[in-house]
Formats: sequence, C-alpha cells, structure tokens
Amino acid sequence: MAAPVAIDDPGDPRLAPYAAMRERDLVGRRGRFVAEGEVVLRVLLSGRSRFGIESVLVSPERLPGLAPALEGLAAPVYVAPRAVMGAVAGFPIHRGVLGIGIRGADPDPDALVPPGPALLLGLVGLANHDNVGGLFRNAAAFGADAVLLDGATCDPLYRKAIRVSAGTCLTVPFGRAATGAALLDLCARHALAPVALTPGGDDIASLPPLPRALLLLGSEGTGLPEALMARARRVGIPMAPGVDSLNVAAAGAVALHRLAGARLSGGPARPSAS
Amino acid sequence: MAAPVAIDDPGDPRLAPYAAMRERDLVGRRGRFVAEGEVVLRVLLSGRSRFGIESVLVSPERLPGLAPALEGLAAPVYVAPRAVMGAVAGFPIHRGVLGIGIRGADPDPDALVPPGPALLLGLVGLANHDNVGGLFRNAAAFGADAVLLDGATCDPLYRKAIRVSAGTCLTVPFGRAATGAALLDLCARHALAPVALTPGGDDIASLPPLPRALLLLGSEGTGLPEALMARARRVGIPMAPGVDSLNVAAAGAVALHRLAGARLSGGPARPSAS
Repeated sequence: MAAPVAIDDPGDPRLAPYAAMRERDLVGRRGRFVAEGEVVLRVLLSGRSRFGIESVLVSPERLPGLAPALEGLAAPVYVAPRAVMGAVAGFPIHRGVLGIGIRGADPDPDALVPPGPALLLGLVGLANHDNVGGLFRNAAAFGADAVLLDGATCDPLYRKAIRVSAGTCLTVPFGRAATGAALLDLCARHALAPVALTPGGDDIASLPPLPRALLLLGSEGTGLPEALMARARRVGIPMAPGVDSLNVAAAGAVALHRLAGARLSGGPARPSAS
Repeated sequence: MAAPVAIDDPGDPRLAPYAAMRERDLVGRRGRFVAEGEVVLRVLLSGRSRFGIESVLVSPERLPGLAPALEGLAAPVYVAPRAVMGAVAGFPIHRGVLGIGIRGADPDPDALVPPGPALLLGLVGLANHDNVGGLFRNAAAFGADAVLLDGATCDPLYRKAIRVSAGTCLTVPFGRAATGAALLDLCARHALAPVALTPGGDDIASLPPLPRALLLLGSEGTGLPEALMARARRVGIPMAPGVDSLNVAAAGAVALHRLAGARLSGGPARPSAS
C-alpha cells in the first residue's frame, strides 16, 4: 500500500467523504458507499466484490492488524485518532475502521441470471435495511446466484445494510428492475419458476425440486401484491396457531434452505454456524 | 379503564419509570421492563403474557386508537405530548406508545418442560438483543414450548429485544439456568434430546423426528462450548462453499422449522408470511 497518511484535522478535505455520515446516508453519496467495520472492510479489500475503493480511514490502533489486508491497495489509507473520526462522521466510530467504496453502475438484472441451475432472490417493497442486509447474508449462505430488487426496495449499499449483511451486499450480485411485474417478466424470459412466499400458500415442503427458480419476498406489513402472486407459485411456511408472520429475513432463510437443499447437501459438506 | 391522566410536566414523578430510558436499559429496572410501540403494548394488554402492567404512557394522538385495548385496564393511563415523552425518555418517542410491565420472578426452567411432545430452545452466551428478540419470534412462530437461557445470555425483557421479537418475549415462556451445562442436566432429567447447531454437524435434514428435543444455539462468534456439544447431537445447515456462518436467528429459524416440521405441517394449515 501507499504509506499511511496521518490526519489530525477533522476539517481536512481528504476526509470529506466521511463527513456527516448519517445525514449523507439519507441523501446518497453520488456513486460512493461507506464500508464500516473490519468484517466489511476486509470483504471490500478481498477482491471478492466488484467495487472499487476510493480510500480507507482507520484509527492508529487498528492499522497494524489491518496492514496485511491493505498490502497492494492503491487507494490512500488515512489514519486518524478515533476522536477525529467521530468528529468527522458526527457520531462515535467505536470500531475505528471505515472505507469509501465506488459503486459503479448496477448490473442489468438479465445479465445476472445464469444458464443451467439457478436460484435467485427477488425483493419487492422491502424498505428495512436490516432485513435487506439479513437477506443478502442468507442469499450468500445458501448459494443464491443473485438478488433482484424492485424499485421500492431500499439500497443494499446503505451503510447499515452492508454491515448487517456481514459484507455480503458487496459480494452477492444484485440488480434492480423498475417494478415487481418486471421481475415476473424476467422470469418468463429466462424460464425461471417464480415462487412467492406468502401466508396461505402451500406448505413449502411440498414443493418439488426446481432447477431454476426466483424466490419472491415482500414486506412484513403489506406482503406481496396480489397481482404478482397471481403469476407465481404460492408457498408458505407452516407456523403455530395464532402466529401470523415470521421476520422476513428468517422466513427467507427457511425458504432458501428449502430451495437450495439439493444443491448444497450434495456438495462438499460445509454445515452452518449457530 | 380508569380515566386517562394528562401530564405536561416531564418532571412529574408518575413518569419517573419512563425517565432516562437508555441509561436505565443498561442498569436494569428492579423488576420492571419497558414495552415500546403499539405491537408490544397490545401483546402486554392482551392477557397472553404472564406479566403485570404498572402504567401506560401514550401521546394524545394515539389514545383513541388504543382505547378499546385499554378497556378493563386497572393501571393508570398517562397521556403526554410527544415532546414531553421525549424529554422524559431522553430521546424522541416517535411511536408515542410506552408501557411499564412488571416482570415478577422468572419461572423455574424445570417447570417449563411439558410432558409428551416437547420442543425447547436453549440459548448459550447470546449477548445480542436483536438476535435474542429474533429467536423468540422464531420460537413463537414454530410453536416452541419455551426458551431456556444460560447465565451469559442477555435479558429477553430488554426494551429492544422485546420490540424485535414483536412482543413474543412476553408470550413465549422463558427461564434461566446458571450455565449451559445446567441445560444439559435438565435435558437428562426430562428425557429431552439435546441438539447442538454447529458448523461441522451432520446435515440437519438427516435428523430423525425427535418427539422431545432441546435445540441449543451459541453465539455467532464463539459458537457453543465444546464441552456442551460433546453431550449433544451435533447438526449443521449445509451452506455454500466459502461461507462460514449464518446469522444465529436465521440459523435458528431453519433449525426450528426442521425440528417442528411434523408438529406443524400436520396441524391446521397456517403458513408463513413473507
């Protein structure tokens, strides 16, 4: 890496991309995003993501541990005391590890559908960043090929979504279609079976193996639009009497586990964590 | 209900249990807990929980909608403008709905094990309130009889855990044992099969139906202690190559779905939400 650059002035213009972080989360960053914490920064540095790196900002205590991962990085590495980091960001940066990524153009959703066996996740109207981050983590765990978003689903490159995803928002390919209907059109173009998770659907255990599928999830409050479900196979997860819903990320984990089943249990055994 | 009492002074002593909420979250509330938001308050008012109610505090706009649920409540209902609620709590109470619950003594864990078919969830060293709240919600969805906690697992009646659980921390019975080893001893006393979810375990799909089981989950970082797993059946969730873990609440959903399977799909069909 280039020699780390010590910065002690919160007003230093090189730190401008890190300024007023929460406010900037809301208005967007013009093609950039914030990687927060060591897990996420390591994913960004690993080369497993498609994203570029504009700069890294770490506290002095964190630099030695991260130095090996920063080897070969062309972008500048700024080093500032935690108090300076907090003054720039507008709140305490306890982890002392930040980076600015460059998002580039989102891929065309059609380009994300592989030939042969395919499992994709489609998110419709999911506005909660924790849930979207959790669903990316599940998509990665169960080997989904990509995540497709409708226009109303929030940005997976929002800082908190990336963090909750354990960095998988940076590694699982995603693309955006204008509407949920466009996701169904995409299924038709690519011979993907659309599967809608919804209360009242058939027990997901009764689903035969689907070599090519798109699993559609809607928000916990309003669910998937009826017009979309009418074009999909409706499946549900049996639950205890009187319980009307699971968290959408938990429901997605159960459904992805079921849909991915044959693909993963046949492969090299690498069972889960608790 | 008793006539609502309007309060405009943040210093009113009747609001003292609502004061400095975040600081109090950390030090505890001497046998009380905070119910936050309409979903949680409605669960507390529903009679489906074992907990008493000391008082309710709502903003004037929220009172009409909640009035039917407050019928029959003996405890006082305080009504204060949102600005007063925020001044008391120390941060904005956007939802305008709070209540103070009375926790009483935690039940003896042995008393929570039913005769006949039994599915319990055991949490070992889970310090994250979001994960504990999410796991209670999963326990409720999949009809677990109770949640048993070791001494290192955080309090399910922490404000945020209750909120994330959608109020199920108030309805799913829970009890605490001193250690994870005590949970294994309990399994022996009650003829429960201990099942440990862990990377490297046998594919959970290969598990035969277990009429009486305790599912053990550990933290994402350190996992379950080896000494506990040695006394349990180790199962895992097949995952994509290179992925080393799921979020513990997501993993718990997959495992509970599997363990509850026969119980729920045989029962009245009430499939899941997305």
